Amino acid sequence: MFKRIGVLGHPHRPMTGEVCAEVSRHLRQQGIETWCHPVWDSALVKPELMGTDLIIAIGGDGSMLRAARMASHRDVPVFGINAGHLGFLTEAGLDEWDRALRILLSGAYWIETRMMIHCEVWRGENPVFADDALNDVVIGRGALARSILIETYIDGGWTTTYNADGVIIATPTGSTAYALAVGGPILPPELKNILVIPVAPHLSLDRPLVLSEGAVVEAVISPELGVEPVLTIDGENITSLQPGDAVVVQNSPLISRFVRLRERNYFYRSLLDRMEPRSPTRQERSPYHARAGKRGVPRT
Amino acid sequence: MFKRIGVLGHPHRPMTGEVCAEVSRHLRQQGIETWCHPVWDSALVKPELMGTDLIIAIGGDGSMLRAARMASHRDVPVFGINAGHLGFLTEAGLDEWDRALRILLSGAYWIETRMMIHCEVWRGENPVFADDALNDVVIGRGALARSILIETYIDGGWTTTYNADGVIIATPTGSTAYALAVGGPILPPELKNILVIPVAPHLSLDRPLVLSEGAVVEAVISPELGVEPVLTIDGENITSLQPGDAVVVQNSPLISRFVRLRERNYFYRSLLDRMEPRSPTRQERSPYHARAGKRGVPRT
Amino acid sequence: MFKRIGVLGHPHRPMTGEVCAEVSRHLRQQGIETWCHPVWDSALVKPELMGTDLIIAIGGDGSMLRAARMASHRDVPVFGINAGHLGFLTEAGLDEWDRALRILLSGAYWIETRMMIHCEVWRGENPVFADDALNDVVIGRGALARSILIETYIDGGWTTTYNADGVIIATPTGSTAYALAVGGPILPPELKNILVIPVAPHLSLDRPLVLSEGAVVEAVISPELGVEPVLTIDGENITSLQPGDAVVVQNSPLISRFVRLRERNYFYRSLLDRMEPRSPTRQERSPYHARAGKRGVPRT
Amino acid sequence: MFKRIGVLGHPHRPMTGEVCAEVSRHLRQQGIETWCHPVWDSALVKPELMGTDLIIAIGGDGSMLRAARMASHRDVPVFGINAGHLGFLTEAGLDEWDRALRILLSGAYWIETRMMIHCEVWRGENPVFADDALNDVVIGRGALARSILIETYIDGGWTTTYNADGVIIATPTGSTAYALAVGGPILPPELKNILVIPVAPHLSLDRPLVLSEGAVVEAVISPELGVEPVLTIDGENITSLQPGDAVVVQNSPLISRFVRLRERNYFYRSLLDRMEPRSPTRQERSPYHARAGKRGVPRT
Repeated sequence: MFKRIGVLGHPHRPMTGEVCAEVSRHLRQQGIETWCHPVWDSALVKPELMGTDLIIAIGGDGSMLRAARMASHRDVPVFGINAGHLGFLTEAGLDEWDRALRILLSGAYWIETRMMIHCEVWRGENPVFADDALNDVVIGRGALARSILIETYIDGGWTTTYNADGVIIATPTGSTAYALAVGGPILPPELKNILVIPVAPHLSLDRPLVLSEGAVVEAVISPELGVEPVLTIDGENITSLQPGDAVVVQNSPLISRFVRLRERNYFYRSLLDRMEPRSPTRQERSPYHARAGKRGVPRT
Repeated sequence: MFKRIGVLGHPHRPMTGEVCAEVSRHLRQQGIETWCHPVWDSALVKPELMGTDLIIAIGGDGSMLRAARMASHRDVPVFGINAGHLGFLTEAGLDEWDRALRILLSGAYWIETRMMIHCEVWRGENPVFADDALNDVVIGRGALARSILIETYIDGGWTTTYNADGVIIATPTGSTAYALAVGGPILPPELKNILVIPVAPHLSLDRPLVLSEGAVVEAVISPELGVEPVLTIDGENITSLQPGDAVVVQNSPLISRFVRLRERNYFYRSLLDRMEPRSPTRQERSPYHARAGKRGVPRT
Repeated sequence: MFKRIGVLGHPHRPMTGEVCAEVSRHLRQQGIETWCHPVWDSALVKPELMGTDLIIAIGGDGSMLRAARMASHRDVPVFGINAGHLGFLTEAGLDEWDRALRILLSGAYWIETRMMIHCEVWRGENPVFADDALNDVVIGRGALARSILIETYIDGGWTTTYNADGVIIATPTGSTAYALAVGGPILPPELKNILVIPVAPHLSLDRPLVLSEGAVVEAVISPELGVEPVLTIDGENITSLQPGDAVVVQNSPLISRFVRLRERNYFYRSLLDRMEPRSPTRQERSPYHARAGKRGVPRT
Repeated sequence: MFKRIGVLGHPHRPMTGEVCAEVSRHLRQQGIETWCHPVWDSALVKPELMGTDLIIAIGGDGSMLRAARMASHRDVPVFGINAGHLGFLTEAGLDEWDRALRILLSGAYWIETRMMIHCEVWRGENPVFADDALNDVVIGRGALARSILIETYIDGGWTTTYNADGVIIATPTGSTAYALAVGGPILPPELKNILVIPVAPHLSLDRPLVLSEGAVVEAVISPELGVEPVLTIDGENITSLQPGDAVVVQNSPLISRFVRLRERNYFYRSLLDRMEPRSPTRQERSPYHARAGKRGVPRT
């Protein structure tokens, strides 16, 4: 059972603050120790993680990403309450948090693990930056809308040189985030494969690449006049890149853990709900499914 | 060592016939028993497969697919000599077959396995068709250029209803075939995941879906006036579908085996060669690769 | 004023029949002569067109296309009542036909003209087929899901050779039909430019081409084994093509006329309503529009 | 005949400087007055334009854009010599400038005009920026890879709200530039229609829109936390935008003029040469073209 739970909220949404307080009160009434911080304040959050059994994060996908990345360093699972739009990572809505919490505390949950990616920037012989992402590492042009050249190597072999606004290197979790906006495929969350996809490729390879498990991607920035490429980690942590910098991305030893109340194969079922929140009709189960498991069909 | 090798060629390309004869002669000179048939003549080929150690298939991707599908029933590996355009599945060109054969017979090869998919068509309570594909199962409109409605279920749960020219259900091997033409991602050949992607979706889900390992897809044809959908297996085996038919696709127990002479991580390196045969420049190895393996970069 | 109005309905939708009858009765009460036929029965419809002032077509987009193509031969305008899904061509819904009719008969309408394209098939020295389309001419593969080679010339100069499932040659009206499903741009209905776009191009040009006004497209079918390409006109009129056939498409002397009650710049405003019928929020007018017309902004 | 010609070169490419000097010497030998400046130095160039008959610009597409935009204020035509990669706007290569110049001075040329767009930024009641573009106006996210909301109005009516990296508002000339990289259609250069297309749209309208002639687009930036959108004109002139800013784009009264030596319908023929510079085969003229003009084909 959970003994100590951290409650993290988006600091600027008023509803979020109230719900954080209510959730904390509810937990303490059950005899659970709690602590509460803004999800953006890593200096406050990090020291609390040791000895914490669970993070309850209240916010949108940005808050989930932050909470999950911090929690991954201590293997603490995250339970997400959606106060944003899409909620690909959350498990309950704002209006149903108390019911969800009751189920959670009853133990009727399971833990979903999701791969993360580790990103290093090498400048000449020296590593100058390193971080881990749950969604994606994006090498992008700066503010000027002009394409950059990115030589891309997979496992050390040259694969292609992108001439593009940028390159997204994403996890399966990230396949429903930025990568989706540039035509990427939707990968199931349990996959361990990295997705590489360019943004606005100009007469260069435009197909998404799914990499073999364990593959290492290196993206080397070519020197171009007047371009200042930047590195973005999970949509926020931003670093300037210089010509010749190599961004090296591979599976991270860190893993994100999400607490799930839903059935285990929820992913495809809830996909279109999230992608098209206005979807009007809900179909019943396939009438063919009972038979689909049966084999022994004669081969022609 | 190989004791009995079957040589299969495309029957209508004249060069192919000559090379088949030369390859057979060369093999017999090494004391290897051979047999030779047109790749399209399954009635002749199938009885020979038992007791055969290797198939050498000479032709384009269509011939490779046919050879591989027949050979998969007896676990016979296939070595492909490319007499076509792209040669995603072949290992040697027509002009280098003798050198390739020498390497092959010296034992300096490895076997690459590739997943196949099993497809059944259910009409009411009855299975009416079954086959296995190495590339893809395509549920398509007939000759009339009009879209069809295809209710799609993954593991028994409704996922989406396509309004499209068709739906491609592909293996990773098939990701560089028809699926690529409709914007699909490139999947590495060792993946065990099915790719689902619509052709010309009309105001319905247009993103490629990569499925979890072991997932079952069911595609149910909705009744529409004047449309006669058809099922195509690996671009050739064609069957009429009726409204209400359910096409059920999942991993096949059959596996294709290809003989490879190239290094094991050839896939990404040779990708652009095949996709853009005119690619002018060849880059050297990444200068960063030696360092990429090193870890210990300080986390920020 | 209208003296003689033809009412055309989709023959197989029961609601449509009733509405046809009611509309006719309503018109006759106003002293207008009417005639009524199924929209598919051109043998009955064509002789009636001479001396008819207006066609009221009741059905989906397929019925509109048929009605408009028949009416274009006699310059008769068409008023569409939507009994289908999207209704890009219709002007009123089934539930508001009487109100719409009142407005129409009061004279508060305008006529929108839309270009059509003329398609000829040449086999050797001989023309073997000709027809006109309001939406599109599609050169497509037959039932077998295998790509075809189509050499494409614009104004007599070779432009590209498609390796694809087919090529769509569309009017601006057709840009919201099949062409939209393969990623095409949306063209405003008053444009006089032809749109050329391939279906599932395999490693060949995949960008939509908008042609200059008056351009002539020729698409020549390359001989391929086992492929039986077909020509589809506005999604229905279907003809077999042979290897070497040239499909020649250019602006038609025929023009479609639609009766409109809405304001003249309705097109973009209603676009998303039709593309995303579930669109939840409706924005007010731009607060900047009043100022946008003003010029005299200092150049920097 | 040309009496005074300005020669503009890219300042940082060494070859360009030499060619500028040689071209100037060649022109002066013909008794033509010349002046020479770096294409980026508008303070030097602008005063010279009055009384100049022709600009010869030597560089890549960026230099052409700069030269053409400056020249458009004085209606001076531009002749482009390609010292860059693609050369969509240039007329001759670096290695053939002397032959091209001879033809040019003989008078065997024609003038191609291309529409430009005028862009104003309104902040509250005040215009704060205005400029003209030959290729495109891009409203984009800043350096952070996070999408922005852009409410888009056409002729004052709300059309859609993009959730995207940005929106490209392009001329037909710009349709082969940045817009092409995000899947846009290729528009012939003589068209007078504006193209609107989002970059990386996230679950919002992803289709290119071609607007009616004379349409006015307004794109209003929604307030988002932590995003600093920027405006880019023809890939270089960059301005910060603030939440609530309205970017208003419409046809400009300025027009670009290019000197052409090629035949008038060069556009489609040279398109694939430029898009796929490695294109191996060149087809002859269509064998059907002579007949395509003939009409009188029997209607079916």
